[in-house]
Amino acid sequence: MSGYMAPKIDTVRVAIIGIGWRGGSAVKRISRIDNVDIRYLCDIEEGRAKKGKEYLSNTKHNPKLFFGKTFSWKEMIDKDDIDLVYITTPWEWHTPMAVYAMESGKHVAVEVPAAKTIDQCWQLVETSERTKKHCMMLENCCYDFFELLTLNLARKGFFGEIIHGEGAYIHNLLINWNFNKRGYYKMWRLKENAFRNGNLYPTHGLGPICQIMNINRGDQMDYLSSISSGDFNMKKEVERLARRDAFFSPYANANYRGNMNTTVVKTKKGRTIMIQHDVSSPRVYSRIHLVSGSEGFARKWPGPEKISKGEKWLSKEQMKKLEEKYTPEIVRKIGKLAKKLGGHGGMDFIMDWRLIDCLRNGLPLDQDVYDAALWSSISPLSEHSVANRGNSVDIIDFTGGSWKQNTPVDLSLKGGGNTDVISVK
Amino acid sequence: MSGYMAPKIDTVRVAIIGIGWRGGSAVKRISRIDNVDIRYLCDIEEGRAKKGKEYLSNTKHNPKLFFGKTFSWKEMIDKDDIDLVYITTPWEWHTPMAVYAMESGKHVAVEVPAAKTIDQCWQLVETSERTKKHCMMLENCCYDFFELLTLNLARKGFFGEIIHGEGAYIHNLLINWNFNKRGYYKMWRLKENAFRNGNLYPTHGLGPICQIMNINRGDQMDYLSSISSGDFNMKKEVERLARRDAFFSPYANANYRGNMNTTVVKTKKGRTIMIQHDVSSPRVYSRIHLVSGSEGFARKWPGPEKISKGEKWLSKEQMKKLEEKYTPEIVRKIGKLAKKLGGHGGMDFIMDWRLIDCLRNGLPLDQDVYDAALWSSISPLSEHSVANRGNSVDIIDFTGGSWKQNTPVDLSLKGGGNTDVISVK
Ligand SMILES: NC(=O)c1ccc[n+]([C@@H]2O[C@H](COP(=O)([O-])OP(=O)(O)OC[C@H]3O[C@@H](n4cnc5c(N)ncnc54)[C@H](O)[C@@H]3O)[C@@H](O)[C@H]2O)c1
Ligand SMILES: NC(=O)c1ccc[n+]([C@@H]2O[C@H](COP(=O)([O-])OP(=O)(O)OC[C@H]3O[C@@H](n4cnc5c(N)ncnc54)[C@H](O)[C@@H]3O)[C@@H](O)[C@H]2O)c1
Repeated sequence: MSGYMAPKIDTVRVAIIGIGWRGGSAVKRISRIDNVDIRYLCDIEEGRAKKGKEYLSNTKHNPKLFFGKTFSWKEMIDKDDIDLVYITTPWEWHTPMAVYAMESGKHVAVEVPAAKTIDQCWQLVETSERTKKHCMMLENCCYDFFELLTLNLARKGFFGEIIHGEGAYIHNLLINWNFNKRGYYKMWRLKENAFRNGNLYPTHGLGPICQIMNINRGDQMDYLSSISSGDFNMKKEVERLARRDAFFSPYANANYRGNMNTTVVKTKKGRTIMIQHDVSSPRVYSRIHLVSGSEGFARKWPGPEKISKGEKWLSKEQMKKLEEKYTPEIVRKIGKLAKKLGGHGGMDFIMDWRLIDCLRNGLPLDQDVYDAALWSSISPLSEHSVANRGNSVDIIDFTGGSWKQNTPVDLSLKGGGNTDVISVK
Repeated sequence: MSGYMAPKIDTVRVAIIGIGWRGGSAVKRISRIDNVDIRYLCDIEEGRAKKGKEYLSNTKHNPKLFFGKTFSWKEMIDKDDIDLVYITTPWEWHTPMAVYAMESGKHVAVEVPAAKTIDQCWQLVETSERTKKHCMMLENCCYDFFELLTLNLARKGFFGEIIHGEGAYIHNLLINWNFNKRGYYKMWRLKENAFRNGNLYPTHGLGPICQIMNINRGDQMDYLSSISSGDFNMKKEVERLARRDAFFSPYANANYRGNMNTTVVKTKKGRTIMIQHDVSSPRVYSRIHLVSGSEGFARKWPGPEKISKGEKWLSKEQMKKLEEKYTPEIVRKIGKLAKKLGGHGGMDFIMDWRLIDCLRNGLPLDQDVYDAALWSSISPLSEHSVANRGNSVDIIDFTGGSWKQNTPVDLSLKGGGNTDVISVK
């Protein structure tokens, strides 16, 4: 499926499952893309499904709603007039929903991570290969501005050989909606953190680095080691909440995973990737995004963004010139509008627009099922390594060796770029 | 030897071995401290020993020189009128010289790393314990200004529980004196990098973090995993040099260690430390120095230095207030002068002054032989892990369990602080 070109679709008929925090914003964003028809929305909760429809009240879209049962989404997917199923539910539902959708002949876009276990990763790969349906993981961070700039710099040889990269998901979710009953659906994210220990959310940091290193397309991950700190924050916080509110009692005795997980990956071509995960420390947000090459270097967090060609950082003026020269075509085309439309500063919209544009023009997707499987697999593999005193684990080659021939992601918009955006003021 | 108080020495009689780049600046610095008598200098090369004496021409010091033979230093150490042997030779000489000096009844200060192998680490520990002589590793980064500030912040509870720390030695040595015949003595540093693979120089990053975490004094390292990238720079550069200059030919075919090494340590109390080493990539210098706690956070590199108490960085004004409140006594006392005297911005002088002041007042040293052994042992342990696909290795407890009782480093100057500095204009 790497490089796979599906038949062109003029107007992409979309069905969305899971209209929570993320799904709600997806509904709004997708409605702004021309040649899209949002036909169905599904959420287990009636109120959330209806809320999704509300977001569309001033648009041409008039989706039919499915809700109320754990498997309402199956009834929806069974409909014939769907090209793309867009999945924004809690993690445990990602693979079952994606597999079912591909089996019924629909392309799939699924939130991160696409799978929670190695077995689920294989299910995605095998199903996509058998059904010839796309399965794209919605790794939006691949479309953030500095990440795209560094990808283009890498493609143009600015960094020389890429030697080492770093990414992370460092985001304090402990302080607000994570541990708040009115937040995540049935506290799903708290449960994940209470009962698992490893890098549970590796893809935001990994995705952009993997594209820069051409992982699955010229290089492949070989093995990893993963070590977690203990928990100094989560249990204490949940115990505090439980004293006020019995709702939290079942979680107060959980054996919380550590606050900080550090995972190091070695690739077949001898590169390394360092990936961190910490969603429960009082820290400033960071995905690091560091690229170290034989000729150049870049780092995003902590800001300001920094680039060097040696032992000194480029000046502001040099940075500006570099940006002018190396801003990739996709950003020149859609970047300004995306910033206006928002969604993590614009990257979410670039991602959705690009997905629809590729489907409409029969282009390969930037992220294929092998990326979804590989990037997601880092979670269960890191859990394994953490449980085994940091001993290393071999990483799985989901491409079956074709990583040696696969061609790198092409962000030039060649053969596409003709999808319009519905104007906003 | 943790907390060991040796008999007071009024005037510390010093002998220095290895008057190269580092030894030369040590001679100058130490001559500025009152109640010191630099009695002997030794270098295998006559010219270097004489150069050392030149540096002292306008001082009261009149050292006798030893030079010419591989073991001239033994003749020097055999002299009776020495209290402290200060070792600034290439790595392979550190342990043999330190052990010989302790055996002949002298205290030892030895450059980083104190040892290259686990066996050497044990030699240092056993000799120090048997002879009751101090063996301090000269980890100057423990005395840098931001490092001392964060140590004091940690002691005062600003960070809450320390969860995770990071350090590094990222310094491009490839571009100048490292691979230059006129630089390091007989290219010793090139040889180390050509024939070993791991974190060869961990202590600059580790030292300050270990003090903050009370390693060897309340917590202990448990195990580590270490992974190196391949080499994309060193062999290429040496091959280029060898084409111009036959001197480099023997090194052109070496199997160079990787450019970037990442090592993750887990401690008994559940903390993690991430340590990196890269001396051959075109990057801006960094030792990272990151401290992540349950209540606060700090990070030094890439500058500017940043501290937070939650999800936002402190403002410049808040940083200034914090500094005013938390600058440790040693910096208040000697910081300004140290900055004037220089040596990596002043930290080298603070270190030497503190060492002499402790010896004069019979105080425990901030870094004891267990720190020297443990911090140095990370190199051979990382080599082992790297050679074994990143599988983890148990870390050795050189304190024999006494880490549970040992008391943390006390930087308050209590019982000391009375050593003068010879004025400079
Ligand atoms: N890429 C990003 O930047 C980003 C940001 C936030 C969240 N996410 C991802 O999006 C997903 C959703 O996160 P969220 O923050 O929106 O959580 P949420 O709890 O707000 O939303 C989940 C939604 O799924 C619905 N749902 C649960 N079970 C269902 C079922 N069986 N059938 C139909 N609907 C069901 C819930 O009712 C809820 O509305 C997660 O995978 C998360 O990791 C990604
Ligand atoms: N802490 C720091 O910031 C820092 C900075 C630089 C170097 N260092 C350390 O200092 C040490 C020396 O490094 P350098 O840069 O000065 O190297 P260098 O090569 O400039 O100096 C080494 C000196 O040792 C001498 N020497 C070699 N073998 C000897 C022997 N058998 N007897 C007597 N003298 C001998 C050499 O002639 C040379 O003068 C190393 O351990 C290095 O890691 C530490």
